[in-house]
Amino acid sequence: MKAKIHVTLKNGVLDPQGKAIEHSLASLNFEGVDAVRQGKYFEIDLHGTDKATAEKNVDEMCKRLIANTVIENYSIDIEE
Amino acid sequence: MKAKIHVTLKNGVLDPQGKAIEHSLASLNFEGVDAVRQGKYFEIDLHGTDKATAEKNVDEMCKRLIANTVIENYSIDIEE
Repeated sequence: MKAKIHVTLKNGVLDPQGKAIEHSLASLNFEGVDAVRQGKYFEIDLHGTDKATAEKNVDEMCKRLIANTVIENYSIDIEE
Repeated sequence: MKAKIHVTLKNGVLDPQGKAIEHSLASLNFEGVDAVRQGKYFEIDLHGTDKATAEKNVDEMCKRLIANTVIENYSIDIEE
């Protein structure tokens, strides 16, 4: 089973990496870019549980280790 | 229009961040974790083009700036 996790900055939290990419794209003459936001992406391979338990476990992993819930949101997709 | 980009390390490329998370999860007593891989995730807001052109532009952005194609793969989803 595989868990795919997206961690993104909450709205209103400054994203200097995203801004840097935005400026670099502009200096490379890419047009039509309004905004860039950078987040993190994790793939976790799991074994030995059903989907519901896996989802609960991964949610706990995000809260305790993977995401900083003060400034970040996370979303979880579990694939069989 | 919004482009969602996933950048992940190619198979065989060492992922020390992923390994560190894997070990941390083990020391937090999470069981059933086989492997963790960390990647990057970008959201780019775009205007003024149709979907096909946007996809072509974003592909060019990935090649020139966002992904290091020597060691990374990328995938692009365009949402209207």
